[in-house]
Amino acid sequence: MSLFAFAIGVGTQNSKGEWLEVFYAKPVLNPDADIEQALRGILGYTGGNVAKLVTSDQLNGLSDALASSSTEQSELAKTCMSTQKPCVVTILEIDEASTSTPEVYLKLHLLSHRLVKPHGINLAGIFGLLPNVAWTNLGAIDIAELAERQLEARLQGELLSVNSVDKFPRMTDYVVPSGVRIAHTARVRLGAHIAAGTTIMHEGFVNFNAGTLGTSMVEGRISAGVVVGDGSDLGGGCSTMGTLSGGGDIVISVGQNCLIGANAGIGIPLGNRCTVESGLYITAGTKVQVLSEDKAVVETIKARELAGKDDLLFRRDSVSGAVQCVTNKSAVALNSELHANN
Amino acid sequence: MSLFAFAIGVGTQNSKGEWLEVFYAKPVLNPDADIEQALRGILGYTGGNVAKLVTSDQLNGLSDALASSSTEQSELAKTCMSTQKPCVVTILEIDEASTSTPEVYLKLHLLSHRLVKPHGINLAGIFGLLPNVAWTNLGAIDIAELAERQLEARLQGELLSVNSVDKFPRMTDYVVPSGVRIAHTARVRLGAHIAAGTTIMHEGFVNFNAGTLGTSMVEGRISAGVVVGDGSDLGGGCSTMGTLSGGGDIVISVGQNCLIGANAGIGIPLGNRCTVESGLYITAGTKVQVLSEDKAVVETIKARELAGKDDLLFRRDSVSGAVQCVTNKSAVALNSELHANN
Amino acid sequence: MSLFAFAIGVGTQNSKGEWLEVFYAKPVLNPDADIEQALRGILGYTGGNVAKLVTSDQLNGLSDALASSSTEQSELAKTCMSTQKPCVVTILEIDEASTSTPEVYLKLHLLSHRLVKPHGINLAGIFGLLPNVAWTNLGAIDIAELAERQLEARLQGELLSVNSVDKFPRMTDYVVPSGVRIAHTARVRLGAHIAAGTTIMHEGFVNFNAGTLGTSMVEGRISAGVVVGDGSDLGGGCSTMGTLSGGGDIVISVGQNCLIGANAGIGIPLGNRCTVESGLYITAGTKVQVLSEDKAVVETIKARELAGKDDLLFRRDSVSGAVQCVTNKSAVALNSELHANN
Repeated sequence: MSLFAFAIGVGTQNSKGEWLEVFYAKPVLNPDADIEQALRGILGYTGGNVAKLVTSDQLNGLSDALASSSTEQSELAKTCMSTQKPCVVTILEIDEASTSTPEVYLKLHLLSHRLVKPHGINLAGIFGLLPNVAWTNLGAIDIAELAERQLEARLQGELLSVNSVDKFPRMTDYVVPSGVRIAHTARVRLGAHIAAGTTIMHEGFVNFNAGTLGTSMVEGRISAGVVVGDGSDLGGGCSTMGTLSGGGDIVISVGQNCLIGANAGIGIPLGNRCTVESGLYITAGTKVQVLSEDKAVVETIKARELAGKDDLLFRRDSVSGAVQCVTNKSAVALNSELHANN
Repeated sequence: MSLFAFAIGVGTQNSKGEWLEVFYAKPVLNPDADIEQALRGILGYTGGNVAKLVTSDQLNGLSDALASSSTEQSELAKTCMSTQKPCVVTILEIDEASTSTPEVYLKLHLLSHRLVKPHGINLAGIFGLLPNVAWTNLGAIDIAELAERQLEARLQGELLSVNSVDKFPRMTDYVVPSGVRIAHTARVRLGAHIAAGTTIMHEGFVNFNAGTLGTSMVEGRISAGVVVGDGSDLGGGCSTMGTLSGGGDIVISVGQNCLIGANAGIGIPLGNRCTVESGLYITAGTKVQVLSEDKAVVETIKARELAGKDDLLFRRDSVSGAVQCVTNKSAVALNSELHANN
Repeated sequence: MSLFAFAIGVGTQNSKGEWLEVFYAKPVLNPDADIEQALRGILGYTGGNVAKLVTSDQLNGLSDALASSSTEQSELAKTCMSTQKPCVVTILEIDEASTSTPEVYLKLHLLSHRLVKPHGINLAGIFGLLPNVAWTNLGAIDIAELAERQLEARLQGELLSVNSVDKFPRMTDYVVPSGVRIAHTARVRLGAHIAAGTTIMHEGFVNFNAGTLGTSMVEGRISAGVVVGDGSDLGGGCSTMGTLSGGGDIVISVGQNCLIGANAGIGIPLGNRCTVESGLYITAGTKVQVLSEDKAVVETIKARELAGKDDLLFRRDSVSGAVQCVTNKSAVALNSELHANN
């Protein structure tokens, strides 16, 4: 059998020796048998999902054992020997619920390194294992130790600047995937999946276990769990409902080549080539007049019945005030398709 | 009589000796008589609201005088003796309009340390006493001295990074109150009141003299003067009108257990258990069709007449385009209640 | 003939010697003949638009040559002699399409130093000449060199914090123009034009080649190319469509003394004294009921026909759901004006 994932990390612990965060420079999905063998030989790994605090000697041994089979990891292990910070080797035999902070950080890294896609890894229980951390200009600091550190810094004429107080750090302090622009990194959490070809503008936002699959211009908010298909753009300030906050059981997603207008929002998943007019918020319960190609009202249904369907344009008629859905299908074809899955 | 507030601070002055900002590690509301006595004895305090620049000797004397009665302040005074930065002791005998920059900073600290609630302290005249400051990675810098400092830093191969040019600093560089998460601290000003149990997400914002009173998920904007009750959530990008900008004379507030949807907005105060549908903006002048429990239109009134009432759901009918208010009251009870305060 | 622009800069290059960014402390528009003469004499400048890497000796010569005629530039040249960073003298004979990264940076500086207004300078081809850069707490870093630098920093117990991955840096790390407040500088790009008297609040945003011309409170998004006239306010989260993203060929602008409400948006240029109600998005294709002073519907037209006209109030009737435009003109005068330019 083969391992699910493996990574050498360097992290931060609080004064009690509890992990605050772990940085994995080069995480590996499905490592080779050579790596597993080295882990068994050098670290005494005997299976399961574990995060082992390692010594400089162990890193040296690991580096030697991997020298011929996995040059990159061998070099990483050697490089890590120099640090005064705690180092950890995290090994996941299988993808199951996490049991330690280093495990959770590895999973978030796998997402942001684009080794797994959103919903492609088991994130059960991560909130309880992620400590709330003060992310500062001096690195991660335990909240309980912060006030004293801030006073000390002030008295020394320095600034201890707290950029975030959160369970998740920002992604770019851990990895900047290739081929992306992220104008304001404070709005992309570790665990986001940003595909090559994606630009996240200043108003864009991407939560963990969420992101893009291809070329996208993102000026709106991609909530936890939301995936945006290739070629789709999110206009400035637009909203996608997350399953954590009001979206209910429906997992929101956006298909390919969609456009969600500025200040618009969706509470239903969109299929491919769909457009939501700027300023219009479609919730699952919104009643929608479905128009045929010749602009006749075919029927009035709840938006949730249009979830995932292709080629739809949502707008609010600016004279009648009714929310409408326009398609490029004939009325007959449309009507039969709408009821195909009812 | 007893003092209103007292604090030992360390701050920053510009090259003219004017205060740019003051950091108070442990401000005290209604200090004990022992503290007042020490201030009179050591600093020659004779009453009134004053901010006294203090020497290392004076801090030492204060520390000794408070050693038995107020250990925390005694230790703070001793710790501050080590700094090269200017130290100040600010004493407010009564809560009245401010007369100095250190006084204003003390009041903003009292709010963010949750020692007073929004609207619970006199903030008259603070804008004129708060200098506009360049908040940088090297601390507060006078705007007039900035350009030269930036060039010097560049030539030395360093970055003088200006994070904000504003009268208010961000709260978390002064205090991180317990029990909160603030995903992006640049959007919470000093003077905000963030209750334990509150999470401010990346899109959340809290101005000074505003904030939460209990458990809240805040993904929208809490304008100056706006208070959000326990159990209420603000959806992504939602807006609360501030009295400084368009809200007029009405002080906006949100009661308990309310939900303001994503990209929605309010220009009236909400009572308890109210909901505003995602994407709907209710201004004071919005005409609202009030529906009874059986969905009959009871009457059409301006939203300001619904200000502060409980158990209301605001939505825009997605077929007729009319803004409506649904309650769980019978039509008769509702109608009489609506007119009870007219 | 006289030169178009000139500036002495200090910048950052990657390990291949390619420019990542250039900082010009004191750019000059239309420099005096004395400056041109010095450039010809000291740097061998023979005309055209050029960016010359200069030595300490050349800076010294330039300083001497400018000592009597241009004290400020002379002192700047002398000050720059001390740096280990590469220095550049950029000279633009005429305002035409850019051909180098230092040229583009000079043009963006001219905008943000308010020496030229938005649309007042040739920005053709700038995207191709602006490298995508990791903007960090340690300055500009080439994306290709970032991962290794991040690992090194971690191992040394330091944080290499990536604040932005973008072609444009934030403006305030280059220049803070006088008389402004910018509460959250990460949202204002170099190349923005922020007039004295403008306050950009936390939710405000200003792209390059865009900005304000006078006193404005900006809590919304000013897209690339959008100019806001004196006395106009942009409410929280409001949107202006950019020509880069969905606005099409129409260049959006906002006249004087306008108010765009919170969470509203415009896809047409506004004239003077116009108001858009909070929460209402007007696109060019929105059908609008034009009301006369006595609230009669004069006609129903597309919003693009109202582009640039003065004294309009846009709102959505909250009972009928229709988007309406109210003016303070009589119906007859209004109707004839509407058709004057058709």
